[in-house]
Amino acid sequence: MRQVAILGVAMTKFGVLEKTNLEMFAEAGLEAIALSNLEPKDMEALYFGNCLGDFEEGQMHMAPFAHAELGLPVGVPATRFESACATATVAIRHAALLVGSGVYDVVLAGGTERACAMGTPLATRTFAMGHHAQHESTAGLTFPGVFAMAAHIYSEKYKVPLKELKRNMAEVAVKNHFHGAMNPKAHFQKEIDVDTVLDGMMVADPLQLFDCCPFSDGAAAVVVAEAGKARDLVKKPVYIGGMGQASAGPLYLQKDLSRVMAREASIAQAYRESGLGPDDVDVVELHDCFTIAEILALESFGLYEFGKAYDAAAKRETYLGGRVVVNPSGGLKAKGHPIGATGAAQVTEIVEQLRGESGPRQVEGARVGLVDTLGGDFGTICNIVLRN
Amino acid sequence: MRQVAILGVAMTKFGVLEKTNLEMFAEAGLEAIALSNLEPKDMEALYFGNCLGDFEEGQMHMAPFAHAELGLPVGVPATRFESACATATVAIRHAALLVGSGVYDVVLAGGTERACAMGTPLATRTFAMGHHAQHESTAGLTFPGVFAMAAHIYSEKYKVPLKELKRNMAEVAVKNHFHGAMNPKAHFQKEIDVDTVLDGMMVADPLQLFDCCPFSDGAAAVVVAEAGKARDLVKKPVYIGGMGQASAGPLYLQKDLSRVMAREASIAQAYRESGLGPDDVDVVELHDCFTIAEILALESFGLYEFGKAYDAAAKRETYLGGRVVVNPSGGLKAKGHPIGATGAAQVTEIVEQLRGESGPRQVEGARVGLVDTLGGDFGTICNIVLRN
Repeated sequence: MRQVAILGVAMTKFGVLEKTNLEMFAEAGLEAIALSNLEPKDMEALYFGNCLGDFEEGQMHMAPFAHAELGLPVGVPATRFESACATATVAIRHAALLVGSGVYDVVLAGGTERACAMGTPLATRTFAMGHHAQHESTAGLTFPGVFAMAAHIYSEKYKVPLKELKRNMAEVAVKNHFHGAMNPKAHFQKEIDVDTVLDGMMVADPLQLFDCCPFSDGAAAVVVAEAGKARDLVKKPVYIGGMGQASAGPLYLQKDLSRVMAREASIAQAYRESGLGPDDVDVVELHDCFTIAEILALESFGLYEFGKAYDAAAKRETYLGGRVVVNPSGGLKAKGHPIGATGAAQVTEIVEQLRGESGPRQVEGARVGLVDTLGGDFGTICNIVLRN
Repeated sequence: MRQVAILGVAMTKFGVLEKTNLEMFAEAGLEAIALSNLEPKDMEALYFGNCLGDFEEGQMHMAPFAHAELGLPVGVPATRFESACATATVAIRHAALLVGSGVYDVVLAGGTERACAMGTPLATRTFAMGHHAQHESTAGLTFPGVFAMAAHIYSEKYKVPLKELKRNMAEVAVKNHFHGAMNPKAHFQKEIDVDTVLDGMMVADPLQLFDCCPFSDGAAAVVVAEAGKARDLVKKPVYIGGMGQASAGPLYLQKDLSRVMAREASIAQAYRESGLGPDDVDVVELHDCFTIAEILALESFGLYEFGKAYDAAAKRETYLGGRVVVNPSGGLKAKGHPIGATGAAQVTEIVEQLRGESGPRQVEGARVGLVDTLGGDFGTICNIVLRN
């Protein structure tokens, strides 16, 4: 495999936008191409992520239309990926695999989602189709419900009283809002405190409103290229060290909701490929769809022992300036979560961090970053280790 | 790139089935694995196609659930593709690219669709989301409408009177039903005559009911492996000679509906990669979603000059025993069209033909076969050249 680099990265503002998926993706894609000192005609393929365009805009088969919006040549294939929330990460992984293996030299990858125009009730119902429809959705399963169960199991298994766990989960939200307040692209740019979380509306006990990430509109895109070419084009390419992707089926096959099997398989692959491990990681963008999810992820990465990550935010270890900075972008919680775009926005943040371009939220001396995206209720995980 | 082979291939019966997408895909997938003399645990990745599971069954993120249904290990990534009707072909192409480049040695690829339970009106409305939603669906565009326009343009451009063109289009349907009557997996296994077509209900002038393929339920899957490994496992592996995939955006960017730009780019790539050309092709499975579509495709392949393929079926040149056999399976027209499965069923037919296993519809001495799948209204084309 050839060495693979990320060149230009770009994302729209995340939030409630009055733009179509194609408009948002074109904005991010064209900016990523321009920042790579390339033109649309230089792209050799488009790896495009979107989850529910058919419900959002009555649009299936969005990839060739995104291709047209970007002005790519006819010979350039445009391929849509859908892996629930892990959609864009899976698209980027495939772009990198095909560049690494010499099929392509330069590929645009990313994703878009326009959830807000549906309104929260319909967005909630449609995205809940990421559960197993026959056996689990019909039983009333929801994503907050799954992560609420995980929180209860965590509390029980590690003997962390629920009240203590809730306060520590709230600290995760406080941290990610603190970081998001420094991110001009974030959906929410306002700090909160622990009481904001603990006084919030109950969603699925013990998860309250501020334990949950929002639905957002937005798009993000990155240019993936062979490393030699990348070095000719941009001053600071960031390299893909290793990647992992794993699948664990529906919820009823998970053995223990406090351990995400697919993540453990995926991160092991990403570490092995990169020759790096948890001690090397300076900065992480991980899938904090709910506050408890951040805690579980940190343990699967080996950044904390199992049962020990719950108070990492409270101890400020995962804050800017802490021992490993987690979700400096604000994470899904504050930066926002346009489902099909999320993974590409995570890569965007890590690449900018490793280039030292993150302004007030720069992780000093960041050399190795980790991207983590979870699709559905533990069904898909995709990880990318990036390095200078 | 390493040489890539197809081992086991399998498809469910196509038609109106009382089965879920996961049940159908598991049936096809497990059979394809068994016919490869392998077990599910030997698969290193799953490339899975489905278009509208969210409307069909309230199921997004179907790939990891298909993975679980097949009993694949957790470390094996399952990835969903959606390229409208070209979905499964695009999934198989990516499986082959990743095997060819050494990322994987053995991959399962295919697709499934369950359109019939929605009923024709809802199926028609949902699959019409493959048009450009903002600019074209809102204008009332339908797939029969697009191909009806193509037929009018063909008639005008090549001075083939519409009445004559219609009779010749009917001959395409007659041929594909003739072939389908020999295929025990086909949705329709009954011969028809030209009058059946010309007496049919008008759908979109000049397309009548029997000019149009049906919605079907069904799944198909193939095992893709490195050629050396394939030779150890099965007696008659069939090799991938070359592949193409291209995108041409929405209908408003097509210059001439009698020429499918994306197909011309895609087939050129597939021929170039394979070192083969139209003179080498013995058998074709192509995208006859409408009878006129078969005529257009034959011309893009270079099997006929532009404006000359319209009477190929009437002259019996594309029948079993003709100079190039087209859609011996019955094609989308008679075998049926479960959207997300279609490309994998086309590959299944060509592989069986090249192995000499097609029974009464065997193309004698078939050595080179071509797969062609069109997604949307000319937005995506994927081609695969297979050979002994």
